[in-house]
Amino acid sequence: MRGLVYHGPRDVRCDSLPDPTPSDSRGAVLRVERASICGSDLHLYHGALASPPGFTIGHEFVGEVVEVGSDVRRFQVGDRVLASGVIGCGECSQCLRGRVVRCERAPAQVYGVSPLLPGGQAEAVAVPAADRWLLAIPDGVSVEQAVLLTDILPTGFFGAKNADLHPGDDVAILGMGPVGIMALLSARLYGPARIFAIDRVPERLALAQELGAIPVDAGSDVAAFLADATSGRGPDAVIEAVGADETVQLAIQLVRVGGSVSVVGVNVNMAFPFPMGLAFMKNLTFRIGLVPVPELWEALVPLLQSGQLAPERVFSHHLPLSRGAEAYELFDSRVDGVLKVLLDPAA
Amino acid sequence: MRGLVYHGPRDVRCDSLPDPTPSDSRGAVLRVERASICGSDLHLYHGALASPPGFTIGHEFVGEVVEVGSDVRRFQVGDRVLASGVIGCGECSQCLRGRVVRCERAPAQVYGVSPLLPGGQAEAVAVPAADRWLLAIPDGVSVEQAVLLTDILPTGFFGAKNADLHPGDDVAILGMGPVGIMALLSARLYGPARIFAIDRVPERLALAQELGAIPVDAGSDVAAFLADATSGRGPDAVIEAVGADETVQLAIQLVRVGGSVSVVGVNVNMAFPFPMGLAFMKNLTFRIGLVPVPELWEALVPLLQSGQLAPERVFSHHLPLSRGAEAYELFDSRVDGVLKVLLDPAA
Amino acid sequence: MRGLVYHGPRDVRCDSLPDPTPSDSRGAVLRVERASICGSDLHLYHGALASPPGFTIGHEFVGEVVEVGSDVRRFQVGDRVLASGVIGCGECSQCLRGRVVRCERAPAQVYGVSPLLPGGQAEAVAVPAADRWLLAIPDGVSVEQAVLLTDILPTGFFGAKNADLHPGDDVAILGMGPVGIMALLSARLYGPARIFAIDRVPERLALAQELGAIPVDAGSDVAAFLADATSGRGPDAVIEAVGADETVQLAIQLVRVGGSVSVVGVNVNMAFPFPMGLAFMKNLTFRIGLVPVPELWEALVPLLQSGQLAPERVFSHHLPLSRGAEAYELFDSRVDGVLKVLLDPAA
Amino acid sequence: MRGLVYHGPRDVRCDSLPDPTPSDSRGAVLRVERASICGSDLHLYHGALASPPGFTIGHEFVGEVVEVGSDVRRFQVGDRVLASGVIGCGECSQCLRGRVVRCERAPAQVYGVSPLLPGGQAEAVAVPAADRWLLAIPDGVSVEQAVLLTDILPTGFFGAKNADLHPGDDVAILGMGPVGIMALLSARLYGPARIFAIDRVPERLALAQELGAIPVDAGSDVAAFLADATSGRGPDAVIEAVGADETVQLAIQLVRVGGSVSVVGVNVNMAFPFPMGLAFMKNLTFRIGLVPVPELWEALVPLLQSGQLAPERVFSHHLPLSRGAEAYELFDSRVDGVLKVLLDPAA
Repeated sequence: MRGLVYHGPRDVRCDSLPDPTPSDSRGAVLRVERASICGSDLHLYHGALASPPGFTIGHEFVGEVVEVGSDVRRFQVGDRVLASGVIGCGECSQCLRGRVVRCERAPAQVYGVSPLLPGGQAEAVAVPAADRWLLAIPDGVSVEQAVLLTDILPTGFFGAKNADLHPGDDVAILGMGPVGIMALLSARLYGPARIFAIDRVPERLALAQELGAIPVDAGSDVAAFLADATSGRGPDAVIEAVGADETVQLAIQLVRVGGSVSVVGVNVNMAFPFPMGLAFMKNLTFRIGLVPVPELWEALVPLLQSGQLAPERVFSHHLPLSRGAEAYELFDSRVDGVLKVLLDPAA
Repeated sequence: MRGLVYHGPRDVRCDSLPDPTPSDSRGAVLRVERASICGSDLHLYHGALASPPGFTIGHEFVGEVVEVGSDVRRFQVGDRVLASGVIGCGECSQCLRGRVVRCERAPAQVYGVSPLLPGGQAEAVAVPAADRWLLAIPDGVSVEQAVLLTDILPTGFFGAKNADLHPGDDVAILGMGPVGIMALLSARLYGPARIFAIDRVPERLALAQELGAIPVDAGSDVAAFLADATSGRGPDAVIEAVGADETVQLAIQLVRVGGSVSVVGVNVNMAFPFPMGLAFMKNLTFRIGLVPVPELWEALVPLLQSGQLAPERVFSHHLPLSRGAEAYELFDSRVDGVLKVLLDPAA
Repeated sequence: MRGLVYHGPRDVRCDSLPDPTPSDSRGAVLRVERASICGSDLHLYHGALASPPGFTIGHEFVGEVVEVGSDVRRFQVGDRVLASGVIGCGECSQCLRGRVVRCERAPAQVYGVSPLLPGGQAEAVAVPAADRWLLAIPDGVSVEQAVLLTDILPTGFFGAKNADLHPGDDVAILGMGPVGIMALLSARLYGPARIFAIDRVPERLALAQELGAIPVDAGSDVAAFLADATSGRGPDAVIEAVGADETVQLAIQLVRVGGSVSVVGVNVNMAFPFPMGLAFMKNLTFRIGLVPVPELWEALVPLLQSGQLAPERVFSHHLPLSRGAEAYELFDSRVDGVLKVLLDPAA
Repeated sequence: MRGLVYHGPRDVRCDSLPDPTPSDSRGAVLRVERASICGSDLHLYHGALASPPGFTIGHEFVGEVVEVGSDVRRFQVGDRVLASGVIGCGECSQCLRGRVVRCERAPAQVYGVSPLLPGGQAEAVAVPAADRWLLAIPDGVSVEQAVLLTDILPTGFFGAKNADLHPGDDVAILGMGPVGIMALLSARLYGPARIFAIDRVPERLALAQELGAIPVDAGSDVAAFLADATSGRGPDAVIEAVGADETVQLAIQLVRVGGSVSVVGVNVNMAFPFPMGLAFMKNLTFRIGLVPVPELWEALVPLLQSGQLAPERVFSHHLPLSRGAEAYELFDSRVDGVLKVLLDPAA
């Protein structure tokens, strides 16, 4: 089969690779229908993560089951499924309850990043503990929506859920990239009075406005604007969807006394300069975390089915898998209205 | 001044009455700008409540402060204000925190119903403990919205809040009268996947559909319809906005195992036949209660200001106070698309 | 094997019966070590439930696995286990998450009561879906504590959990039978200022007092006593652990405005006379439900292991299974300090 | 009058000062009965805060009202009261609801620290907005308990409340100084299975053990000990009651995936090195904040009255105000079993 492989910084190629096989009797293999590129894939693309030769990338994919181990009970060959981009052992008492990031045997794993777990930007991919981490694509959910359920829609929803939103609140979202857009759509589910969307890119601000938010140019004095708009209080919650040190600090600076900051941008700085004195005066609640993808499907699937969520417009570009190198280049550029890229192995 | 007075079942008249004066040094008097008729006023109209001669009715009103007692600090003559339709003593530790229905001195009182508290369907009305139970009409809130803040918008919101809604839930609302419509608008703030709106009146169902709900004719087999629509589970929550024994029982019958029933319809049957065995198998949470109006303004005002809530369309008819008798007749009839009637003492 | 069988009102006998076999490949068979009699077994004992000939009773039991079906993975012959007294299909998406009472295929089933599910007051018992509804007896948990984990300790804990308790609250518990005692021990976990324990039996009141509660004789004017003790407010929560119409009504009468009533007594009256007008003025939250046993083990097991809960003293009598008839008679009598009876099939 | 005044690092003296007068018509003056020294007073003692000449220190005090402004309604001369150590303007909509740290006019103020707000380690002290921030010493609350209600008991309770504790959880508390002891007593109100108390001082560990905790020597490998005790998971919550960078970092390191860290130690480092990557993998909830003292009295007073909380043993030393210099020296030394010092102006 073919799959996207990291060869070095900004060098991703579509290589020929051996066909995957089930990891064990509980595993399955999917023929990938669609896969997408996530902002966090760019960490790898930029060379921030090592990756062994021949290791495929990508944790957002859906497909058809083409092989199942002997102990797989809930799926069979021919089923169309989506996978959680994050998985656990699948057998401990936490995994049995679907609490993927609380796996008692090891930290949660991510396809295409964690060793031994090749990714799904490929024609086929092996899925461990299939009964636990796959979901049949639900009726009324499109293939593009299904791809979004594997990671970034749950991620954005997790960010909103972690922000302690109540009807009537004001919320600010820093960053209108794909995850920020998912957070915006998700924040709307909590009945805020106003959503302030902060970004530098005019197309992204325009999209945020179209989706009901008040756009704020990140190049302007955001703190002054928000203080003025909220009688000096600041928003009740801030969702950070960038991951940079500056934006996480800005989130803490902006939020009101007694408010919550929820970080969904990926920041792994082990000595992030946290303004503790300010947090103390603000009675801050601060949350950050790897999204527990499968726990959030129960809420998100019916919202997609009923049309309350329509996140698929985040896909600005569709390309065949074979043009994966170009897809990464495009996504990394952030130009020309590129927001998120969907790859089709069959195209 | 003139005011609406109950003279007997279905006999309300616009009488000349003495001008009100402040109850004490903490009281104020308002010149009423607008007042509206509430479904609960019909209890009195139908003769279910006794009422002394010369007692004005109505607990939904807004107006201009025309007189203040010497201990009123937060308001002065000329301020335009709305009043909580429900009040407490205003001085106990619960009232100081705005917890109106927890007043430690006496049960919460309702204008136009509780003895010694004449109502506001009049040219003027006396307001006790003005600092506590009045709110200056906020910028960006229209006079019609202000009237709705005195009771039924908080009531509908309280019903939704008491239903334990989460994003992705299904919720059914029984009754699309004015309070049911408020509950529908409020339920949308909690991100449900679907809202099922049940009523018998086609115009009300049409309005519910326009507001985003799935209309269900109360004359059809509602239980079968909802079971079918929810794979047999039933909705996660049911909001009852009628108050009849049959509809409260239907709510318990419809809700899923582990779900919540929230009653905002007024039911005061002291021996309501509650299906306890069914409730036991359903692990039911059941809530009913008098709305704590002032506690809910903090959430509702910004939602009105930002346009997320636009409840004023519930007013189907506008009449001068002098035509109060006709207004009651009309409202009681439920015909010709009548939904809620607004009275203008100055017209 | 021998087991207790219902032959008619107040006629339970220890009969010889065929040995049980696993229901299917997911089932197991236990040799019963201990079983206990639950207050709800008295419904059957009194003839309120029909029961087919040869049907064993009892849903509280622990034992050793002596046979497993071919698809049982988490247990093997020789394991010492306790069983959830309440089970679901074990395979639907709700059961997979351990949400036993939300089973999507059928209402939750109770051993010894639900058809096709013979009970465990016997030398052996068949357990369906063993992987899902058995728990290995944890280290540091005694056999008596393990028996209590099968039903009444989770039941009492569920009652306390459903009462919305916060540190500093006052709570009243109606009924100091075994479930009431479990509710008392569980309520203490929520930091109440005071627990009022109401019963008629002096020994039970004495035990409640010893466990930290304020005893109140049910024969006195309980409402007056509690009003006086709480400055007229009433307790913040009331837990009903009797199940009679009168006590459920008393609970609603006693609770403060804004409080919660949690019913763990079994009341299956399909036309229970509910004082709705009173509930309306009280802004009542009312909960009742079948306990989701396995969901509560995660909290209860460490509390037993660390000694924070020591519920085993509720066992006032130990008898061999062969004396089951006498055990039922004794338990039904409520005399001589009898509180709960433990049966030993091997004695 | 006499009062303790800061003259320079480690130089506190009991000086003669002018008698205080009410700040305005809403203010009052207290004759101080008892005052205590708080760990946060040591910041000033060590010279970390500037302080104008003649400025008295101390935010923990109780006393008798000796003078009231003309607009004070709830208190009169002769009332025995305790004061919130933290106050707001007392007039904005947040202060009216008792939300002291959300004051809309200015950040919350602390006696003896905030400019214009001299403290209460003195014979007398002026209290602004008396109706809002004083509490009559409740029946059944001793004078020592009353002093603890002014700050550190609410602080410890706030720390426990912010830790998201549930029955059956494991919680670790870093630091067994006076606030840590209050946090321990408060954590017990949430039904944890185990409380791990970490400190270096043997007497403090002994006291923690006596109060029901498992003592852990801070000099040992705490992380290894807790990992071992919790099957590798770590405690569900960690309460930090020291305020040092190292202990806040240790708290994040210790807590389980999905757990909460609650900081009540005072840390005002504006560039605290926060291990964000670790927090991300842990799905961390992190809270820190200035205690909203008056909001917590409602829960704490009945717990003191009923004897569920007995925090007064934290006072290890009683001294007259005139020996204030010695008291500070002693408290700063942490030797000889010193835990907390109570000052008596009349002794």
